[in-house]
Amino acid sequence: MVLADGMQASSKDLAFDLRAYLAERQAKVEEALDRSLPVVYPEKIYEAMRYSLMAGGKRLRPILSLATCELAGGTIEMAMPTACALEMIHTMSLIHDDLPAMDNDDYRRGKLTNHKVFGEDVAILAGDGLLAYAFEHIATETKGVDPLRLLRVVALVGRAVGAAGLVGGQVVDLDCEGKKDITIETLNFIHNHKTAALLEASVISGAILAGASEAVIEALLRYAKNIGLAFQIVDDILDITSTAEELGKSVGKDLKAEKATYPSFWGIDESRTQAQRLIQSAKAEVAEFGEKARPLTAIADFIISRTR
Amino acid sequence: MVLADGMQASSKDLAFDLRAYLAERQAKVEEALDRSLPVVYPEKIYEAMRYSLMAGGKRLRPILSLATCELAGGTIEMAMPTACALEMIHTMSLIHDDLPAMDNDDYRRGKLTNHKVFGEDVAILAGDGLLAYAFEHIATETKGVDPLRLLRVVALVGRAVGAAGLVGGQVVDLDCEGKKDITIETLNFIHNHKTAALLEASVISGAILAGASEAVIEALLRYAKNIGLAFQIVDDILDITSTAEELGKSVGKDLKAEKATYPSFWGIDESRTQAQRLIQSAKAEVAEFGEKARPLTAIADFIISRTR
Repeated sequence: MVLADGMQASSKDLAFDLRAYLAERQAKVEEALDRSLPVVYPEKIYEAMRYSLMAGGKRLRPILSLATCELAGGTIEMAMPTACALEMIHTMSLIHDDLPAMDNDDYRRGKLTNHKVFGEDVAILAGDGLLAYAFEHIATETKGVDPLRLLRVVALVGRAVGAAGLVGGQVVDLDCEGKKDITIETLNFIHNHKTAALLEASVISGAILAGASEAVIEALLRYAKNIGLAFQIVDDILDITSTAEELGKSVGKDLKAEKATYPSFWGIDESRTQAQRLIQSAKAEVAEFGEKARPLTAIADFIISRTR
Repeated sequence: MVLADGMQASSKDLAFDLRAYLAERQAKVEEALDRSLPVVYPEKIYEAMRYSLMAGGKRLRPILSLATCELAGGTIEMAMPTACALEMIHTMSLIHDDLPAMDNDDYRRGKLTNHKVFGEDVAILAGDGLLAYAFEHIATETKGVDPLRLLRVVALVGRAVGAAGLVGGQVVDLDCEGKKDITIETLNFIHNHKTAALLEASVISGAILAGASEAVIEALLRYAKNIGLAFQIVDDILDITSTAEELGKSVGKDLKAEKATYPSFWGIDESRTQAQRLIQSAKAEVAEFGEKARPLTAIADFIISRTR
């Protein structure tokens, strides 16, 4: 039984203190992000970039990149600039998604969205600035890594955020709004690109930086694809079942926008089952790494059990 | 006499057929840009990116990058992916600048602006897609270049477009709109960042890729700073003296927006003199390279004599 296995695996993993691990890693990432972007003239643009970059969040992408770098024998220092860059890019995508011309959101993580505070013009530029800086940061701040590996990460991250990734997913998502005949294939395309692509880049970037073999990178990529889709299914479920207070952003948005979601195809119970299956598959992909995969298996469990 | 020298230099340079040179290089760049971005699913975003990328223009940034790569002993093939990336980034900045939340322009190069054709949401994403793809393209398509040089170019280009460059200049520019007490220092800041930064990155990227010495890169950087500012002064003059037909975009915009410009500080005649002086200085910086600098001196002359 997949679900029973899942529960067994969860209780077995209790020995690994995920909460402490995440708290420690989040603190390290926050500190690195804070240092990465000092405020200089013209202050307004740096303040706008920092407003969203330092607005909290799970820091899941950086934490995944650090984790796979360690798993593959590297240090967290090697992966930290890339980890920060991934969070800069994730932040850019949130700032631009929230714009009036896109999802038109007033709140994000319980705070006013970037354009509500700084204006639409500065919000667009803050996103552009974060995106450009992400690549500069990887190229200038990474120490002790073979430059060919670093170039591979630049290419990987560029692809994950461009038309072949996040941007492509967002275009299809916008195109589907209000349409009633969305297929499950289209919904999968949206989320494989809008959410999973950057999670995949996060997971394998750390391993690439550490010089992992292609076989290890492939296994981690399959882990990433599974948690990426599970992450989105859980997001869709939370949009229905959470309160705004728990989630820190508007809820019921998908229903109001008549958006196709996994629960709208499968119902909530089947969506939970599917997400659980994906998490099991993700954990199976990294089982071969034994003890070293503990953070990754615990993060997979966290994705399905999270309430925000 | 600076101006008399300038005229002598110009007539001496007639032996170099700039028109033929630019036409040949433009054609090469157009072809490379066309190949760089095929249309795949979701077609709409690729079409939006290509609509602005393939909308003509002088291709000055790519041509400068190719020219300095050759000057420093490299081939145009080594610099072509970076050259295309520079044009992608320039195009991104135009798409985002034209948005209703920014300059709100309906026409660019005689064609409807990106958001007038594809909508604001797609235009924002097309810019993001071009920016991300620029870095991916440099990292994946450059052949025969030392990876450390390539990483330096990634960092240089990232810096030129981010808050320390183009984005920073645009923020100050937006901030100054309608203000009557703009200083010449602020105006210089705007253009050193909004226009000159990417021109500088264009000029020195080619030389870096070819493995030029730091002394050569420094001389080229000074050349670039001079032509960058001259370029902007000429832009300001053309906004006053050109017809919309000549320019392919709205004219008299700066006056209408009560924008601080070089002619508003100096008058048109003195602005022309200043631009001429900058062009002379630019040419002096590359004089040491002799025959090899012919394209760069001719491009400097072109910048001051252009009518669009």
